[in-house]
Amino acid sequence: MDEFGLIQVYFAGAPAAQQGCGLDHRQALGIGDDAAVLAPIPQGQQLVVTTDSLVENRHYLADVDPTALGHKALAVSLSDLAAMGAKPWAFTLNLHLRGIRKPWLEAFSKGLNALALEHGMSLVGGDTVSVQAEEAVVVTAMGLVPLGQALLRDGLQPGDELWVSGSLGDGVYALKHKPRAKKLLWPQPRLALGQALREQQLAHAAIDISDGLASELGHLLERSQARARGTGLTAHVHLQSLSQCLGPELQAAVNRNELDLQQACLLAARSGDEYELLFAAPLAARPAIEALALQLDLRLTPIGRVDLTNACPTGQPASNDMAQSRWYGLDGHPLSLSQDALAGFNHFQPPAGQET
Amino acid sequence: MDEFGLIQVYFAGAPAAQQGCGLDHRQALGIGDDAAVLAPIPQGQQLVVTTDSLVENRHYLADVDPTALGHKALAVSLSDLAAMGAKPWAFTLNLHLRGIRKPWLEAFSKGLNALALEHGMSLVGGDTVSVQAEEAVVVTAMGLVPLGQALLRDGLQPGDELWVSGSLGDGVYALKHKPRAKKLLWPQPRLALGQALREQQLAHAAIDISDGLASELGHLLERSQARARGTGLTAHVHLQSLSQCLGPELQAAVNRNELDLQQACLLAARSGDEYELLFAAPLAARPAIEALALQLDLRLTPIGRVDLTNACPTGQPASNDMAQSRWYGLDGHPLSLSQDALAGFNHFQPPAGQET
Repeated sequence: MDEFGLIQVYFAGAPAAQQGCGLDHRQALGIGDDAAVLAPIPQGQQLVVTTDSLVENRHYLADVDPTALGHKALAVSLSDLAAMGAKPWAFTLNLHLRGIRKPWLEAFSKGLNALALEHGMSLVGGDTVSVQAEEAVVVTAMGLVPLGQALLRDGLQPGDELWVSGSLGDGVYALKHKPRAKKLLWPQPRLALGQALREQQLAHAAIDISDGLASELGHLLERSQARARGTGLTAHVHLQSLSQCLGPELQAAVNRNELDLQQACLLAARSGDEYELLFAAPLAARPAIEALALQLDLRLTPIGRVDLTNACPTGQPASNDMAQSRWYGLDGHPLSLSQDALAGFNHFQPPAGQET
Repeated sequence: MDEFGLIQVYFAGAPAAQQGCGLDHRQALGIGDDAAVLAPIPQGQQLVVTTDSLVENRHYLADVDPTALGHKALAVSLSDLAAMGAKPWAFTLNLHLRGIRKPWLEAFSKGLNALALEHGMSLVGGDTVSVQAEEAVVVTAMGLVPLGQALLRDGLQPGDELWVSGSLGDGVYALKHKPRAKKLLWPQPRLALGQALREQQLAHAAIDISDGLASELGHLLERSQARARGTGLTAHVHLQSLSQCLGPELQAAVNRNELDLQQACLLAARSGDEYELLFAAPLAARPAIEALALQLDLRLTPIGRVDLTNACPTGQPASNDMAQSRWYGLDGHPLSLSQDALAGFNHFQPPAGQET
């Protein structure tokens, strides 16, 4: 396997965001040396880094369209950058392949390069190794944010509204019924949304929905609770509101009476691999967020709010585990759900018990 | 697999180089959000990035000491940073594991964290996924260099001397005869050397010896030739000089008459996974390089020099492929070697023909 040749042929055509910036190659050098030398980061900006591994038969099927896989491999990391309000900058790529299949590589690089170009990212390095069994793709992505302005998970405040971008649930539904559904294959990371929320200082906290809405909400609460200390936070989520942002496949299934609306909403709350953002914003930001939805032509749905735990409707005293979510059914009454009922569901990831 | 818990338990103890720099968490945040937020890069510095995949049964044996593997996983990337003259800064870690084995993780993280601490690096992110077959470890490392001062591969100039750090060949010899030889398991990346060469502006070009000296020399020539255009570069390498930096295991085997010195030198020239640097420096830099060797307590051996191709001793005219290496035997006469005789030899990598 001639790794160097492989990278040159398939990936060197990826856009070099760092080129054309008036630097000589000693100041900005991509693939082909022991390491990449990146153009200097503009003053007042800082680096945001995320890495994701996609493993065959776990995160994608062996017969996936390689162009779609190339897209997805980068989209997963871009969705993390979106949740930070970061601007994509550069990335590295590790390919663990059973062998060199030229048509596969051509298709894979096409999907990857197109998404990189769309977001002005440079491929600055990589490694290609040969494996015997499962293939894997690893992307490590770097983005930039103005110093101290990254959107974090831990800023949730009492009184915040909870918002979800786009629609949820088509992933999990499609896997079962239409495994080649488009959204699953061509996820669009919400970079414009994340950057706008940060620039306009609309959101207190944000997270990307990769493990399912309910799980991610748990992460927001835990992280924010850890910072708040002593004050309990409760998130109240209304299925009635969530029903406004069901994916079209899932909505169609409800319309055909294949499942009832409440089931569909709970499915949407568990569905992972969604590439949407969950964010928290003060009530006062609602008009600006609605304007942003129009501007971006992207559905943004308020699905609930955050309160102090001691102000929660059940009157229950704050426990040690003071960060909690309460879910309300379509009739407005609190649901009593087991933890499992809202546990994250990852499309290609078998439940732990099924692993071999 | 609870990835978040796993990272917290085993790796969050890794040193946070970015902590204690007077920044609040919004300006420097490690593991636990959608992405890491890195402390601002000091002005006048730029980022250097490299990534390496280690795959079980290919780059390490399944029964490797996990502490040694943790060390090696980071050392591979640090060796690349060393070759750029970069100062280590931060890294991400992807673990592709068949399952969570606590003693293994404890040992692995011990080796990794110790090397990270030694070089003041922060683990700033990662991903842990479950695989069915071969395990793999991916490290993406970031370092810093002053703007425009990275040591590149393409600066080779006629008249340069070629130098090798440390000793060569024990890797390939040990694999066959003593598969647990220390150097193979605990490689020491030559960071102090790389940084000193850069700071003192001693070297025109440098590369890390991961595919074998002969291969890496080929890379230096190719890259430099591409920049030089029109002028042919020839590297002249003397086995007599190379015999001064054989690894102790290899030298001992020669002393025991298990192989002759010329064979040993050719083995050293092919041996990969060496974590040593090959660098080119003008003749005038020799006294400073010899002083550096003393200062770092590290053997630095001149093994040959670079000439214009049309000045090469055979009087052969410059061809299209004007970058070439000429090797001279212990008797000083040119060797006629097939390309294969000096092809890189990677310890755990079976030759292409043997792959299944």
